[in-house]
Amino acid sequence: MSSSGVSFLFDLDGTLVDSVYQHVLAWQEALQSAGIELSVWRIHRKIGMSGGLFTEMLLREISMEITPALLDTLQRQHAEAYARLVRWVRPLPGAKALLRYLTNAGIPWTIATSARMGSAQYNLDILEVDRARVPVVTRDDVRHAKPDPDLFVAAASRLGVDVQSAVIVGDSIWDMLAARRARGLGVGLLSGGYGQDELERSGAIRVYEDPADLLRHIDEVGGRT
Amino acid sequence: MSSSGVSFLFDLDGTLVDSVYQHVLAWQEALQSAGIELSVWRIHRKIGMSGGLFTEMLLREISMEITPALLDTLQRQHAEAYARLVRWVRPLPGAKALLRYLTNAGIPWTIATSARMGSAQYNLDILEVDRARVPVVTRDDVRHAKPDPDLFVAAASRLGVDVQSAVIVGDSIWDMLAARRARGLGVGLLSGGYGQDELERSGAIRVYEDPADLLRHIDEVGGRT
Repeated sequence: MSSSGVSFLFDLDGTLVDSVYQHVLAWQEALQSAGIELSVWRIHRKIGMSGGLFTEMLLREISMEITPALLDTLQRQHAEAYARLVRWVRPLPGAKALLRYLTNAGIPWTIATSARMGSAQYNLDILEVDRARVPVVTRDDVRHAKPDPDLFVAAASRLGVDVQSAVIVGDSIWDMLAARRARGLGVGLLSGGYGQDELERSGAIRVYEDPADLLRHIDEVGGRT
Repeated sequence: MSSSGVSFLFDLDGTLVDSVYQHVLAWQEALQSAGIELSVWRIHRKIGMSGGLFTEMLLREISMEITPALLDTLQRQHAEAYARLVRWVRPLPGAKALLRYLTNAGIPWTIATSARMGSAQYNLDILEVDRARVPVVTRDDVRHAKPDPDLFVAAASRLGVDVQSAVIVGDSIWDMLAARRARGLGVGLLSGGYGQDELERSGAIRVYEDPADLLRHIDEVGGRT
């Protein structure tokens, strides 16, 4: 462990991988296929929560009854639509360099995502994350996903670090809320398409553009070597 | 004309029609096809400018040389990609009701878009805008598109109204900047996916969620009958 005792817990979609807009349009396609019309910006604003909570909130917004069969259909159709768009998904600028920097500096880090391992695997592959060495935590591993704190608490526990000294990096207000509920230090990135103000109001102590910008300012959040 | 002397000038994409996210991914596809990697949120933040200015700003951001041939290729590839995504595009909630309300109230209104008529036509069709009665202004009609004020100045002129008493409704900071430069009153909508704070900081006197929300609060911006 580094001398400063700091560690980094990362969200995945929109934080390390440029996939938020593809997820947004895949959800719109799934909803429209089920006859549900919902504005795209409202879908964007709810992305990053657990899939179940996400669809429940969307359906509540249009006062539609939520049945397990409907949720199943939506999640399957989203996965199909996303699979068609995933060829355009890339690592965000600086993502691989940032993870390499932390590894070389001996600073513990891992990834905690509201996605299930099935859909997270592609992202981990393009980031070249070695799951044998990085204890990635997914939706499959916890009872409640973001904005509940469970994912980040589990991630800190797998690293053997104190979540209260962890820097929790995410692109959505759900990451920042989960970070506060976990008593960690939320750091926001604009790369998921949310505004700086939204991230600060939900508890980010600092906001950077993307992983490359965070790496340039890593000393500000305790990532010194 | 209404007794209050107010008029409404509307942006189109993201303001009356839910098409911003499709445009964003269509631009990403065009850029990637030309070997240009640019984060999707940066494309989103530049959408709503004139196509030429938009691609120039994007290419400047990655320090790439801008040739007329490259601009041509990008605009053609964007149009092709967008044509594949346009089937998911819908009017925003309340858009048709808002335009009908203004018409019935005798309040002059029209649409001023940075798009060319070729690509705007589909949006006007799904909004059921009768171009014989509504003097729509497009990129083809002015020297400079947003954030220059020309589109809104031309739109006010075609309506025969004073642009300084016009309410200029848009979803992007480029609309708000163009509104200020035209000396009109900018009103922001969140339906293009930008944050409230961004719109207010670029000059919006009020921010609503979408056309339906604006219609519910129409008295606040002078749209009384």
